[in-house]
Amino acid sequence: MTSVLQIPDFEPAVEIIPLGGLGEIGLNMLLFKVGEEILVIDAGLMFPEDYMLGIDIVIPDFSFLLRHKDQVRAVILTHGHEDHIGALPFLLRELSAPVYGSRFTLELVREKLKEHQLLGQTDLRLIAPKETLELGSFKIEFIRVAHSIPDGLGLAIHTPLGTFIHSGDFKIDQTGGVSDLNTLAAYGARGVLALLSDSTNVEREGYTIPEKRIGDSLDQIMRKCEGRVMVAVFASNIYRIQQVVDSAVRYGRQVAFNGKSMITNCRIARELGYLHLPPGREITLGEMAQIPDSQVAVITTGSQAEPMSSLTRIARDDHRQIKIKKGDTVVLSSRFIPGNERAITGMIDNLYRFGAEVIYERVSEIHVSGHAHQEELKLMLHLTKPRYFLPIHGEYRHLVKHAQLAHEIGLPWENLLLAENGQVIRFDREGCRFTDPVEVGRVFVDGKGVGDVGDLILRDRRHLSEEGLVVVLTVLNNQTGDLLSGPEIISRGFISEEEYPELIQEAKNRVLEILTQRPVEDRKNWPEIQKEIRKSLQRFFVKSIDRRPVVLPLLIPM
Amino acid sequence: MTSVLQIPDFEPAVEIIPLGGLGEIGLNMLLFKVGEEILVIDAGLMFPEDYMLGIDIVIPDFSFLLRHKDQVRAVILTHGHEDHIGALPFLLRELSAPVYGSRFTLELVREKLKEHQLLGQTDLRLIAPKETLELGSFKIEFIRVAHSIPDGLGLAIHTPLGTFIHSGDFKIDQTGGVSDLNTLAAYGARGVLALLSDSTNVEREGYTIPEKRIGDSLDQIMRKCEGRVMVAVFASNIYRIQQVVDSAVRYGRQVAFNGKSMITNCRIARELGYLHLPPGREITLGEMAQIPDSQVAVITTGSQAEPMSSLTRIARDDHRQIKIKKGDTVVLSSRFIPGNERAITGMIDNLYRFGAEVIYERVSEIHVSGHAHQEELKLMLHLTKPRYFLPIHGEYRHLVKHAQLAHEIGLPWENLLLAENGQVIRFDREGCRFTDPVEVGRVFVDGKGVGDVGDLILRDRRHLSEEGLVVVLTVLNNQTGDLLSGPEIISRGFISEEEYPELIQEAKNRVLEILTQRPVEDRKNWPEIQKEIRKSLQRFFVKSIDRRPVVLPLLIPM
Repeated sequence: MTSVLQIPDFEPAVEIIPLGGLGEIGLNMLLFKVGEEILVIDAGLMFPEDYMLGIDIVIPDFSFLLRHKDQVRAVILTHGHEDHIGALPFLLRELSAPVYGSRFTLELVREKLKEHQLLGQTDLRLIAPKETLELGSFKIEFIRVAHSIPDGLGLAIHTPLGTFIHSGDFKIDQTGGVSDLNTLAAYGARGVLALLSDSTNVEREGYTIPEKRIGDSLDQIMRKCEGRVMVAVFASNIYRIQQVVDSAVRYGRQVAFNGKSMITNCRIARELGYLHLPPGREITLGEMAQIPDSQVAVITTGSQAEPMSSLTRIARDDHRQIKIKKGDTVVLSSRFIPGNERAITGMIDNLYRFGAEVIYERVSEIHVSGHAHQEELKLMLHLTKPRYFLPIHGEYRHLVKHAQLAHEIGLPWENLLLAENGQVIRFDREGCRFTDPVEVGRVFVDGKGVGDVGDLILRDRRHLSEEGLVVVLTVLNNQTGDLLSGPEIISRGFISEEEYPELIQEAKNRVLEILTQRPVEDRKNWPEIQKEIRKSLQRFFVKSIDRRPVVLPLLIPM
Repeated sequence: MTSVLQIPDFEPAVEIIPLGGLGEIGLNMLLFKVGEEILVIDAGLMFPEDYMLGIDIVIPDFSFLLRHKDQVRAVILTHGHEDHIGALPFLLRELSAPVYGSRFTLELVREKLKEHQLLGQTDLRLIAPKETLELGSFKIEFIRVAHSIPDGLGLAIHTPLGTFIHSGDFKIDQTGGVSDLNTLAAYGARGVLALLSDSTNVEREGYTIPEKRIGDSLDQIMRKCEGRVMVAVFASNIYRIQQVVDSAVRYGRQVAFNGKSMITNCRIARELGYLHLPPGREITLGEMAQIPDSQVAVITTGSQAEPMSSLTRIARDDHRQIKIKKGDTVVLSSRFIPGNERAITGMIDNLYRFGAEVIYERVSEIHVSGHAHQEELKLMLHLTKPRYFLPIHGEYRHLVKHAQLAHEIGLPWENLLLAENGQVIRFDREGCRFTDPVEVGRVFVDGKGVGDVGDLILRDRRHLSEEGLVVVLTVLNNQTGDLLSGPEIISRGFISEEEYPELIQEAKNRVLEILTQRPVEDRKNWPEIQKEIRKSLQRFFVKSIDRRPVVLPLLIPM
């Protein structure tokens, strides 16, 4: 591999430092470091999992990067999905660096930075596929890849040690947006030191269904249904939205857009020339009632049954302009994201209750993923012929399976780099090895607080959520420890106090006992008394009703 | 249909009253009522969904049945899964009736009643396939059906109006336990008034994979793996367990059983002659270390990654006797139950981190459902040729799709009965219609409390779980309303008080302001003051940190 042999005089080394996205889905963020120059690839968020009670979003821990603020040359965005750009505003609050991205990506970033009031101070730089960018020791070529959003990019990162290929999020689709296989193949011929490739769908065999096939399914629906057709799609999936529009128009339907992000994204996509709607074919939701149902198509958000989304509100009859009626067909052209299944199926049930027919991935070929399946992943490996392979974007099992796949097609085990967040992979003339890990983690954003909600607070929330709370209130004489008022017992989320008057009375008796039966010299040991009340009531509630509420004993010495 | 024509002198009518399982998965419980005689078919539970915070299990609301206690002739159990027998102890606390079930079912019921100290007072009656039971106006024949537990039964319920077929939970498997298709066909020939059939898998096309094929997959694993093989299976899936045992023995492995319910169920199954293990092939977990890894197979619980289950503990290195090491293979021979995916995939990731290889449904043919797919459902309809069809056991979309399936193969729409819990379907000489619905619902069991946790308490728990709690404590002069002590602010699950000292101070200032700036004549209006404190702090916390904790203002007048 020639590029590996072009070794300059100094001892070159390239470090890859994943801050997020290796060992998890989401939070994608990865650094390339040569000397004192750092490239940041993506700055993604993660939506909270169930156990992260009350958390709004999760972002990567930037600590390492903030300690090397001055070394950051650029932030490069592969595409505009939230798991690649969602943490950007939080990063840009802490450091300043130019942000590179393709057209659609930068437009979405612009909207986001506007919301966070960071647009004015940010240096956004437009780049395009086939372009090359020189940044200190790095030279980067941008490579078009097909994904479920316009303008997805892979990267060829040239370093003094050789070329790294970063796949971005990709699939290989011969019909929709087409990945630039020729450029990837050309790099393969010249020599690639390492490939970093998207592992999201490594559990799936074969190839992804061609996007065009979804168009065929949509055609059938638009043609056969006699009533209105409402299609829920991710608002960033412009190619899919175009297919819905085309199919609707083909079968004589007018198109209405519904949902805030749908309207914003479609506006951007139309401005950029990525979404085309023949003149006179768009209607507002208000105009819907004036034309026959068979001539209506609605494109809407809410495919994940997010609580406040349009479709969820429609399904609970809480939407101002759209009421479901018999004859309507609702199409969910999207996957069921793990964790959302119960909400989505519940929404489907309600749509059926109102008389709609519902078409969804589980029963119909109505969605295809934006991430490569096994055979496409192999193709990426075959085209780029890397010496080393680092699976990225996946939970741990995905990374393992992706490495196994690479081994199956010929890469030796010792060249497969199975790394998780924080592990530093150092390439130098000797080869490649793991060096000292860096600090990584997940930072919770809750309201305006970034990072202040930690495990302790979450533990409290969990405990409160499962068993509720009992507050025990007493006022004691500051001098003698004698009871002046109380005990009062107030609970939330524990029991209905009217249903259990004896239980509450008995709990009060136990508190009284503790307060009155202590030796006089021990009656002012407030922390000890609190502890004893807490323990005694916890025991009592377990025994009497088998519940473990948070017990909060409040003593007021006066 | 002859049986419909055998009309006696009085006006016969049969009412079907679903108390659970129609419009939901789980909670299966359905009544047949003729005059003043009620048959109860199944008494199942449901495991709580995410929003049911802290709830242990869910059971149907028995109110209707309890108002007609004296009419209950029998409880008939179709099989021993929790969603069919789990509510039985709670029912038997409230009313007394003989309980009929097949061998394996009754053994599981016996264990359950023992735990609830109800075994002594319960009249358990063993029945078997092909047997007929006369109960007042009802005559019931039991029909063997294949399911993922031994001794599953369907029912032919003869009434004065005709014959009803209840499928139970079933699939049609030509290799494993075989459903009694001949008996079903014979009823079809004689005339079936209505079929009630399992809708669980109506979204799935084709036929279920034959159970035997899973044995082939297991064989490959047992043969190829050089290390230990651990297979997680539902403890009631005895046929699957037998296949694991057979495969292990075939490839020279000793078998260890792991997990409390696995050990209990396998003991019962062996006593009944349903599970066979050649002599000398069972080992304890303790003996495992003494034989080569290639000769070890472990059959374990925990396929759903339940927090306290064996396999979950193994995957977090918290099991006393089993430590995962490189070379181990873990097989999840089970489905990912919706809601459990994140826990299961997290467990798989951890098993990989400890060096195991993991084989699971998503990547391998290692599990088959116990519920009929579309073609099997059609076969059931074709064999029994019912006049009316009532889809049961399913969420609403399942019921709709099952009705659509029946329509596709020829049943007229007007004979398809789409009902949810509480709707009463009355059959009489005129035909069939819906009459006044009965009261139904879900009752939450939390610790020892049955039904006392309602929506209000759950709402409190949810609110506490998302934003935590702030207690505001003040002692006021009973006569003047003057502040004697406080305000103190104590929080849980809200913020770290050390991180936000100014926020806490500012909150106290607001409380002080409210207390001191009220007109003197208004200073003893405690409820009004509390309300004002709550509102003011809620507003303040939203504005300052964008969080909405539960604010609990406690005023103590002294």
